[in-house]
Amino acid sequence: MTDDWAGSRDLHVEVAARGRRRAGLERALRDAIRAGRLHAGERLPSTRALSRDLGVARGTVADAYGQLAAEGYLTTSQGAPTRVASTPAARQGRLAPAARPNEPRFDLRPGLPDVSSFPRRAWLRALRSALATAPDSALGISDPRGRPELRQALATYLGRARGVLADPAAIVVCTGYIQALGLVARALKTTGRPVIAMEDPCLELHRNIVESAGIEVLPLPVDEGGARPEVPDGAGAVVLTPAHQYPLGGTLAPERRTALVRWARETGGVLVEDDYDGEFRYDRQPVGALQGLDPARVVYAGTASKALVPGLRLAWLVLPADLIEPVVDVKRLADYHSAVLDQLVLADLIGSGGFDRHVRRMRNRYRARRDRLLAMLADRAPYGRPLGVAAGLHLVLELPDGAPSEAELVERGARRSVALGSLAAHWHGSGPRREGLVIGYGRPPEHAFGASLAALSDVVAVAEDRQP
Amino acid sequence: MTDDWAGSRDLHVEVAARGRRRAGLERALRDAIRAGRLHAGERLPSTRALSRDLGVARGTVADAYGQLAAEGYLTTSQGAPTRVASTPAARQGRLAPAARPNEPRFDLRPGLPDVSSFPRRAWLRALRSALATAPDSALGISDPRGRPELRQALATYLGRARGVLADPAAIVVCTGYIQALGLVARALKTTGRPVIAMEDPCLELHRNIVESAGIEVLPLPVDEGGARPEVPDGAGAVVLTPAHQYPLGGTLAPERRTALVRWARETGGVLVEDDYDGEFRYDRQPVGALQGLDPARVVYAGTASKALVPGLRLAWLVLPADLIEPVVDVKRLADYHSAVLDQLVLADLIGSGGFDRHVRRMRNRYRARRDRLLAMLADRAPYGRPLGVAAGLHLVLELPDGAPSEAELVERGARRSVALGSLAAHWHGSGPRREGLVIGYGRPPEHAFGASLAALSDVVAVAEDRQP
Repeated sequence: MTDDWAGSRDLHVEVAARGRRRAGLERALRDAIRAGRLHAGERLPSTRALSRDLGVARGTVADAYGQLAAEGYLTTSQGAPTRVASTPAARQGRLAPAARPNEPRFDLRPGLPDVSSFPRRAWLRALRSALATAPDSALGISDPRGRPELRQALATYLGRARGVLADPAAIVVCTGYIQALGLVARALKTTGRPVIAMEDPCLELHRNIVESAGIEVLPLPVDEGGARPEVPDGAGAVVLTPAHQYPLGGTLAPERRTALVRWARETGGVLVEDDYDGEFRYDRQPVGALQGLDPARVVYAGTASKALVPGLRLAWLVLPADLIEPVVDVKRLADYHSAVLDQLVLADLIGSGGFDRHVRRMRNRYRARRDRLLAMLADRAPYGRPLGVAAGLHLVLELPDGAPSEAELVERGARRSVALGSLAAHWHGSGPRREGLVIGYGRPPEHAFGASLAALSDVVAVAEDRQP
Repeated sequence: MTDDWAGSRDLHVEVAARGRRRAGLERALRDAIRAGRLHAGERLPSTRALSRDLGVARGTVADAYGQLAAEGYLTTSQGAPTRVASTPAARQGRLAPAARPNEPRFDLRPGLPDVSSFPRRAWLRALRSALATAPDSALGISDPRGRPELRQALATYLGRARGVLADPAAIVVCTGYIQALGLVARALKTTGRPVIAMEDPCLELHRNIVESAGIEVLPLPVDEGGARPEVPDGAGAVVLTPAHQYPLGGTLAPERRTALVRWARETGGVLVEDDYDGEFRYDRQPVGALQGLDPARVVYAGTASKALVPGLRLAWLVLPADLIEPVVDVKRLADYHSAVLDQLVLADLIGSGGFDRHVRRMRNRYRARRDRLLAMLADRAPYGRPLGVAAGLHLVLELPDGAPSEAELVERGARRSVALGSLAAHWHGSGPRREGLVIGYGRPPEHAFGASLAALSDVVAVAEDRQP
């Protein structure tokens, strides 16, 4: 058994300075185990290491360990490390196995990509490459905007792949789009824009984030051509999903893009472009970023959550010059900057072409899933109307009058362990509310997509009895 | 040259639907380069891949590439990929090399550990191990509190090494202590505590974070025994650095611990324990966490910024039961949860013993640096009084009347490219302000510590002329 001191482990025991050392050590260990601070199975330092740490004789520690083993607090055996025994107190503080009573067998809720496709090996290779070249200073405190390696890679990538005009100095790497939206909201408030229009429907969580920044949210109606460009009076900014409206799926029409940019120029307003799934476009009609039309009036927001996985919490803002400092100021107080290693890895992956390869591979997969889903829906749910099918990882099955209601289908899905989204929680204006399922076909692992589709098919076929 | 379609890269070009395809493609590429969206040196897709992406004949793409090469926008050569030429417009969007005119040669400011000691190989190994076992679901959206693997590892580690009684369910992993403090501040406000006492002196950035949550900050005086336990009227919480007061370095005296816990119990107040460098204690007198005295009244905050590096932005809160939900609510709106891969790696490192090994190795190194620094100061700056030397990565050289002023020494350091901290910006109360240098001896790389010490020696020896 190796017993290198620096190779041992820390153990915090407060041995009273007065009285017998052995008795004091025993009492301190017993108290720590009884109080639940030392957990069952936890390995203790070797007698040699602990005696050096505490400045007591090694025999004293060995005697104390022996006494506590005799009392049942510790387990010792020749040649193996001493460990905390599994008494009831020592079992406190173990995380109970996660109860997952409601985990659906088939999860077709929107919002997640196929996380099983995360390129683990490529990520590991890119970390090795990044760690081999990163300067030590990259591990210290960085620019609040994020690592220059990633901002440079993103500027080049976004220009090439999304038509974004991005100066690396104008990019702020964020801890996911949730943080990005919150930072922009606070910066808009400090620059005199306390009212923001958001698409109706849109994600409830996003409205909550903006409102928690102390901002009033007004609804902006949406139809098949994306957001209608009638910005409500008083709004100083508009949050949009131009490439693929969330959740309805429309693409912002060219004349609406022009009209919104004109509104921003005339009023000093700001357009916030949430390009959450811009990488996944399935037809040949390119839809470039709105930002390219006027980089001085559009905040562009992109994310790795769909192209890779949301667990990375990596997103980026491309900011107009006059919003860089206000956003950096709130970023500094939020978390100073985002974690650096993932940034270095993503920069490496973009530079090596690995990111493009992954996106293009996944685009082919998701396109094939969409095609199968559309074929199934045409066959089994002819009462519904699929919306937003040209892009992204989800579609809406609109449910017109006479079709089953979204609540009915969601409930029927739940009974068969098929989880589905619906439009309900997305509305926030007083206008008419359409009914529809929101189906996230990106989410199941590739091998389980067929079974998920079959299960969904049974759910939506409910209405066959009622349709002629 | 391989030309696998999925292996190519995305290029966003908007080719007008009307008119000649080749002329349209040429115009779109020329516009993208002129506008600065395509950067110098950027590789274009192969003619085959782009022709498939756009749905045009391969010859059309080849002709367009050829024409633009002739015009000087692209560079082509047999067998090599086509790239964007280095025209002035295409050089836009490159990050200017970071100007570092004021980078000191010897950086002894506090706040950073020796980032060159980051165990890159161990980290890479632990990521490999974590990626080999992590379930796919770990890469999706997690519990806002963070990955259960890390919360379990931290609960066990903090109990063993810091005397913290930690239930994994009460731990919230944060994007650095900056975020942790901001989340706690907002949660304290929503639970009816709009006034918080903070040590005087303390870090100005920390006061700014608390104030930006809409909280009033009151000063709590500090002396050699740490914070004085006279909590100002109206304060609902107190932020403390009990193990090693920042910056003065005192250890919170036992009777003050008891008095502060009594205050919290009697008033329903909360103690926030910032254990920023608790791993680095150089004598045998253990200083356990204040939290162990009353886990129901103390918020414990730890961080990987000193034990590893701040670039990780990893910190953790151990919360009283009634603050878990309020903190989780603000965490969800801040960034939903912190990035998962670093969490999985740290959990692996703690479980394997690699984290303890690193901490113990660094503790030995930092202790040796402290000893050398103290010897030098005793020799060259006998006018000063070193404070807070029992722990941590910094000490204060107090400057009594008659000694050179902190401004004088900082200025003299700057002239010799030696960066030093001072107490000045840390004060926020109206009480007497002491003068002192704050010397961060943890910061230089190991190989450069001797030279840094020699340079500092020349700076502090200024006063020799003036001292008898």
